Amino acid sequence: MGKYLAITGGVGGAKLALGLAKILSPEEVLFVVNTGDDFEHLGLTICPDIDTLTYTLADLNNTELGWGRRGETWSCLDTLGELGGENWFRLGDRDLALHLHRTQRLKQGATLSDATREITQYLGIQHTIVPMCDQPVRTIVHAESGPLAFQHYFVRDRCAPRVTGFHFEGVEKATLPLALTGWLKTCTGVLICPSNPFVSVDTVLAVPGMRQALDRLPVVAVSPIVGGIAIKGPTAKMMEELKVPATAAQVAAHYGDLLDGFVLDNQDAALHNTLPVQTVVTQTVMQSLQDRIDLARTSIHFLDQLTAR
Amino acid sequence: MGKYLAITGGVGGAKLALGLAKILSPEEVLFVVNTGDDFEHLGLTICPDIDTLTYTLADLNNTELGWGRRGETWSCLDTLGELGGENWFRLGDRDLALHLHRTQRLKQGATLSDATREITQYLGIQHTIVPMCDQPVRTIVHAESGPLAFQHYFVRDRCAPRVTGFHFEGVEKATLPLALTGWLKTCTGVLICPSNPFVSVDTVLAVPGMRQALDRLPVVAVSPIVGGIAIKGPTAKMMEELKVPATAAQVAAHYGDLLDGFVLDNQDAALHNTLPVQTVVTQTVMQSLQDRIDLARTSIHFLDQLTAR
Repeated sequence: MGKYLAITGGVGGAKLALGLAKILSPEEVLFVVNTGDDFEHLGLTICPDIDTLTYTLADLNNTELGWGRRGETWSCLDTLGELGGENWFRLGDRDLALHLHRTQRLKQGATLSDATREITQYLGIQHTIVPMCDQPVRTIVHAESGPLAFQHYFVRDRCAPRVTGFHFEGVEKATLPLALTGWLKTCTGVLICPSNPFVSVDTVLAVPGMRQALDRLPVVAVSPIVGGIAIKGPTAKMMEELKVPATAAQVAAHYGDLLDGFVLDNQDAALHNTLPVQTVVTQTVMQSLQDRIDLARTSIHFLDQLTAR
Repeated sequence: MGKYLAITGGVGGAKLALGLAKILSPEEVLFVVNTGDDFEHLGLTICPDIDTLTYTLADLNNTELGWGRRGETWSCLDTLGELGGENWFRLGDRDLALHLHRTQRLKQGATLSDATREITQYLGIQHTIVPMCDQPVRTIVHAESGPLAFQHYFVRDRCAPRVTGFHFEGVEKATLPLALTGWLKTCTGVLICPSNPFVSVDTVLAVPGMRQALDRLPVVAVSPIVGGIAIKGPTAKMMEELKVPATAAQVAAHYGDLLDGFVLDNQDAALHNTLPVQTVVTQTVMQSLQDRIDLARTSIHFLDQLTAR
């Protein structure tokens, strides 16, 4: 039996994570999640990627919106607008409960790992979701107009500013949570989900100790770029602004030495055997649950093959 | 033209306050509100009496529940329960928006007076609502079982503990807000609304400078006890536990020298001319809006007569 670590950001990565959770037991896979998108808003600590994964694994995610919680209501946000409050970040009433509760637990001295474990257990999730660290790390997007907190870039400004780089504020003081370092000791392979390399995966890789831990393990990434476009989010736009071609090959090049294998979509089959790492070609665009399960199975099988070699 | 100060707590007092707001202009009446019931919950600063008055004057109060906001939804609270969070205090989604926004404004450095003025203006309220002070004062209910924060006594424990006394934590460091001291300079009379004398009115009177300011003004109180029962809340129960008869006469005795006049309900007409202060007998039980207006008119007329003397 393999024991896997899956690195994920929000919506894109969570799709594959759900597939992994369907085929692997909680003893076989652990999810480590980007927290660079986290932010303080209205006095609440909001962790968009942890929450997206939580809602997805709890089968509570809002498939109509593509983010947030199913069966959501918006009374609080509507009222906040009427009061002249900040309402650019779309907080649903049910979602808000999670932020209020987590913020309260953090104030009471719980770590983010503790709070995440408690919340996921309450929602009936069997698998373990671990933040990349318990210390606050905040992604700063350097844009031509100046530096922006990630959610200001992503939500408030709708990714409009042209980016020139990224900075993960506080990451040098961050440490890997105990649940993660424990898991890494016996882990047999790492899967990087199809998340944004710059602002979802690089953040996780930047936590001191992470890169070194991964260096001695087989690592497979699933390309978040398919046929030159990002399946979800601003990855392709960012690549263009950073003056690199928005291609799957460039994503593989970005991960560099870290990678042992790369999963390409059928649309990028022409890249097969052209990259400096082993590749597998399959359908990476996940629409149905079966798509998620199939991609999870193919990726884990590929990782097992690399491990065996 | 008279210029009045109305002292009020929550639901009971807010009924008369609405009547006053209907017959007096914002230049003629200012509302000063008890903040001893305020508390920190889920990281939010909640001010139940200010909010009750705000919702009442904005015609947004929930008349079905008797508290909170009209058209309320409960998604956040329901979800908080599912997450194992604290849900004993019934926070509606719309109500929550006000608490989030106010807490945010306070963190940004606004005073409670500032935040209250902003919020009431956003909700279209013309009259001024002023907290009794901008500093936190917290009513502690001394019960036979030990001291209790007010909302724990009032909401969580549903007033079940037998009370032995009260303490207003922090009141010695409190100061009257500028808007209130300014108003008091030209004020011609004070009306104490039918609120709980122990935990709604005494708190306001305990703010340093308040009692002295009132000593030189005619003061009329409307009895919150009618025919030996409290129209709203635990006033009568508290009086019994404090071993004083739950009568309107005892409320007048409690206010003592402060009072120049006392408004009795028709049911207590037998007390007319038996108290050491002037009394007027009228219908004080307010069911309709007209009841509120009539009682406001009678009380202000009574106060004007005392002032003229």
